[in-house]
Amino acid sequence: MTRIVVVGGVAAGMSAAARARRLDEAAEIIVLERGEHVSFANCGLPYHVGDEITDRSRLLLHTPRSLKASLDLDVRTRHEVVAIDRADHRVTVRDLDAGSDYTLPYDALVLATGAEPIVPPLPGLDRPQVRTLRTVPDADALRALLEAGARRAVVIGAGFIGLETVEAFRHRGLDVTLVELAPQVLPALDPDLAQLVEQELRRHDVDVRVGTGFTAVEEGTAGHPVDVVLADGSRVPADVVLLGVGVRPSTALARESGLELAPSGAVVVTPDQRTSDPRIWAVGDAIQVHDAVTGAPGVVPLAGPANRQGRTAADSIMGRVVASRPVLGTAIVRVFGLTAAVTGPTSRRLALAGVEHRRVNLHPSHHASYYPGARSLHLTLLFTPDGRVLGAQAVGTEGVDKRIDVVAVAIRAGMTVDDLAELELAYAPPFGSAKDPVNMAAFMAQNVLDGTLVTWSPEDLDTVLDGGHLLLDVRSGREFAQGHLPGALCIPHTHVREHIDEIIAAAAGRPVAIMCRTGFRSYLAHRVLAAHGLESASLDGGWVSLLAARPDAPVVVGSRIPAEVGS
Amino acid sequence: MTRIVVVGGVAAGMSAAARARRLDEAAEIIVLERGEHVSFANCGLPYHVGDEITDRSRLLLHTPRSLKASLDLDVRTRHEVVAIDRADHRVTVRDLDAGSDYTLPYDALVLATGAEPIVPPLPGLDRPQVRTLRTVPDADALRALLEAGARRAVVIGAGFIGLETVEAFRHRGLDVTLVELAPQVLPALDPDLAQLVEQELRRHDVDVRVGTGFTAVEEGTAGHPVDVVLADGSRVPADVVLLGVGVRPSTALARESGLELAPSGAVVVTPDQRTSDPRIWAVGDAIQVHDAVTGAPGVVPLAGPANRQGRTAADSIMGRVVASRPVLGTAIVRVFGLTAAVTGPTSRRLALAGVEHRRVNLHPSHHASYYPGARSLHLTLLFTPDGRVLGAQAVGTEGVDKRIDVVAVAIRAGMTVDDLAELELAYAPPFGSAKDPVNMAAFMAQNVLDGTLVTWSPEDLDTVLDGGHLLLDVRSGREFAQGHLPGALCIPHTHVREHIDEIIAAAAGRPVAIMCRTGFRSYLAHRVLAAHGLESASLDGGWVSLLAARPDAPVVVGSRIPAEVGS
Repeated sequence: MTRIVVVGGVAAGMSAAARARRLDEAAEIIVLERGEHVSFANCGLPYHVGDEITDRSRLLLHTPRSLKASLDLDVRTRHEVVAIDRADHRVTVRDLDAGSDYTLPYDALVLATGAEPIVPPLPGLDRPQVRTLRTVPDADALRALLEAGARRAVVIGAGFIGLETVEAFRHRGLDVTLVELAPQVLPALDPDLAQLVEQELRRHDVDVRVGTGFTAVEEGTAGHPVDVVLADGSRVPADVVLLGVGVRPSTALARESGLELAPSGAVVVTPDQRTSDPRIWAVGDAIQVHDAVTGAPGVVPLAGPANRQGRTAADSIMGRVVASRPVLGTAIVRVFGLTAAVTGPTSRRLALAGVEHRRVNLHPSHHASYYPGARSLHLTLLFTPDGRVLGAQAVGTEGVDKRIDVVAVAIRAGMTVDDLAELELAYAPPFGSAKDPVNMAAFMAQNVLDGTLVTWSPEDLDTVLDGGHLLLDVRSGREFAQGHLPGALCIPHTHVREHIDEIIAAAAGRPVAIMCRTGFRSYLAHRVLAAHGLESASLDGGWVSLLAARPDAPVVVGSRIPAEVGS
Repeated sequence: MTRIVVVGGVAAGMSAAARARRLDEAAEIIVLERGEHVSFANCGLPYHVGDEITDRSRLLLHTPRSLKASLDLDVRTRHEVVAIDRADHRVTVRDLDAGSDYTLPYDALVLATGAEPIVPPLPGLDRPQVRTLRTVPDADALRALLEAGARRAVVIGAGFIGLETVEAFRHRGLDVTLVELAPQVLPALDPDLAQLVEQELRRHDVDVRVGTGFTAVEEGTAGHPVDVVLADGSRVPADVVLLGVGVRPSTALARESGLELAPSGAVVVTPDQRTSDPRIWAVGDAIQVHDAVTGAPGVVPLAGPANRQGRTAADSIMGRVVASRPVLGTAIVRVFGLTAAVTGPTSRRLALAGVEHRRVNLHPSHHASYYPGARSLHLTLLFTPDGRVLGAQAVGTEGVDKRIDVVAVAIRAGMTVDDLAELELAYAPPFGSAKDPVNMAAFMAQNVLDGTLVTWSPEDLDTVLDGGHLLLDVRSGREFAQGHLPGALCIPHTHVREHIDEIIAAAAGRPVAIMCRTGFRSYLAHRVLAAHGLESASLDGGWVSLLAARPDAPVVVGSRIPAEVGS
């Protein structure tokens, strides 16, 4: 009989144990978990804090008893593996309640030791108001602080957990300050899409402080138990502080037993999840993975890959030939009324990896615009100069998850923008459009790659405004009057042909930077200008993207526009 | 200068015209539309009938005037092309209002003549209460009948348009009878999934008559203007009758001008949308396409492919090297609270095409089950014996479109179930699960293909009930008491190991047919039995699929079960 010992009993570890049992009824399978709970709903914790999931027991998906009954697993909570004797194939286990140690031989060992929240070495983080959110007891502690009357919260870190906790605190009626060292919220998105999320946070009265570090948590000076001291010297009073600045792999055990680790501290594994010791597999947040697009090594603490790695490890232990795939990092977060999601690397990560890429932005309706309830979706597609799809990001109220999933499959399949253009997605007016936003993004990408569409981007704003360009705004007179860039000439797109001589004269040999609200009308105008021999470019994503990417853009309101084209 | 003449100004034709303009500012582009409207929202018509889209002008996306202003198109409504002179490259156009004809030379001709509703040669279909729904005037006529006080409707044909119109009529408060010749509603789905849609129709008080033809529409005998006479001789009184039995390609013009037609009557085209005449392209519902999975030729009147074909034709006219893809037939329909969707061929179409295939069924939650609002999703995956994904169908309240879109991309990419298992889809509790329903379906498919999971299906019910099998129900005692199959032995899955000797004795050498509610617990039990050398199989999709596929299944309620395993 084979004995399989699994260290860590949440997502990846429990997937490995369950799959192993389904493949081998005879194996002895022992799961050792140092915490109090196994197989709990890690990703549900912020919603329990926010009281959306009121019943705590909903988070406890299984117990040692239910796992014994269902899968004949020997699950031991509050049992910590403190050492691995690789030569003799056994682990030393500490029974945390009994305070005693015992050894346990294994035929196969699975390390699913997970990750732990990063706690920076700053003063005051040991105060009881400062919490992380990773386990059920963490959620219990946060709820206890709220139930004790907390009114003001500071959330440090605007990543996924940070934003979910911001939302949870607001649901509970707290005043919330969000502090993020990076110059934007959600560093997993490109800055212009993240800006939309930041606006949503502000709409929900979150005090957002981006580009701001903190230096300490100190005794409160304003009637609240603590102050969070920011790098600019300001103090934010708080009853509760959530530290959400990321996690690092929990690999002390792997390190001490001499398994190969990456510079990041993550365990190095083969595609079948085996460590440098052929009797030891590793899965989940503790391991190093490779990016599916750039190939770069990294750590991606996500539930989906973790669960599949557990399954792969069990298959491998059973002698099956299997291989986990590189990781795309597909992720999603709800932030009040918005959803933000990403698949594949951001523009920044592509640049860091030296991957040359192009980018298109669009703001289509999430379903047929004539069907009631259509909402705008902000979609960004990234692709190589030869058309391979690299990544996508989306922010909107509806239909965000679907479009990101579609692109996630396309990237995995190695599709090009030509393939994306021809995707046949489910269409009826309540669900999409005959030309789905993903098709539309691909059409734009095709146009950019074959030169049918030349774009300029918000990053070019200063160059465009310096006088070397004619700025042509092809929105309606009414839209123009509500806000436009200084020096822009307003010719609504339906009047461009009749005013072409005026445009040529105004350009006076300069290139023309065209813009409209979302980029479609300026594309039409761009084609007309091109036919008349004018060098021109269409603002990618239009006014909507410009305002998101450049909140500092100079905006003129209410100017007079030529009467004959002002309708 | 090039002159492009487009015959038909709705989806495919207008896409061709608009794309042609964007690629060639100098071309003369004339769109001839025999109807009153161009570029109208065909797919929105049922929602206008149902008063969800109250404002009729919302359906009229463009007018000849707006298309002139925006794209410099010469759009002529109520102008019908009555002949093509292929030798001299010109068409004869009838101005329907003026009653006069004129000729128009072309350099390139695009036929986008669409499809027309099939009207069977049965008596009474010319009565004013009998309508089809294809154009804005069709919708106007239906609305006029409703506004004149229609109270009872008969819808003939339970395809997409039929079901959307059923819903529209119910929204307007009418009593509705739905008549369908096939033995099921929605023939685009496999029968068991269609059964879920039929139940939803009945829950909304629709009188569903499947497997029933009609023979005539006659003078009413029950205080309503007409009676629909069914094949069984019964008469259904009605104030309005919607004929939704399908469409056929409108290709009289192509036929008369000698272009190559398929036996179906559809225009034969090359991948770049060219007909047998190299100066004439054809697009949309009038053409023959090939099925992406089976390769079979057919007619697929869907808006998505039509729009893309129009774009492809324009590119081809401009000399670009392009090719439309074979068609998957991805489609979706909302039926009251349910959504039903499909991509790729049904089981029946695969069988007709001689494509050997396997099928798995599952009923996962549309998002994390512990997060409030999780709803069950019925998902079917079809794949070849070597694992290539062929198709998928889904019925549920939420998340149906997303899963079908994901599989639609996977099929297009030629993915296998191994690829599907490793898809990395966006997960947070409000949006999905760490193991998404699509991943779960792929896991099941992998298990079926490698023999880890042997299934039996509702079609095997009679064989299973004939005494040659032990029927083992591994649901809880409470579930069992609420309804089970006759002769079943109830051993909840958590007790299977301790009762294995009892099961072996009861089997007495016979194979064991195992079942639970959805198929997961019976899979676990199946693995235990297999380890003990018992031949067994797990009911695919469980009790839920069984009841859907076999409404005739004998169900025993309230039997006593062994006390020790009854918890």
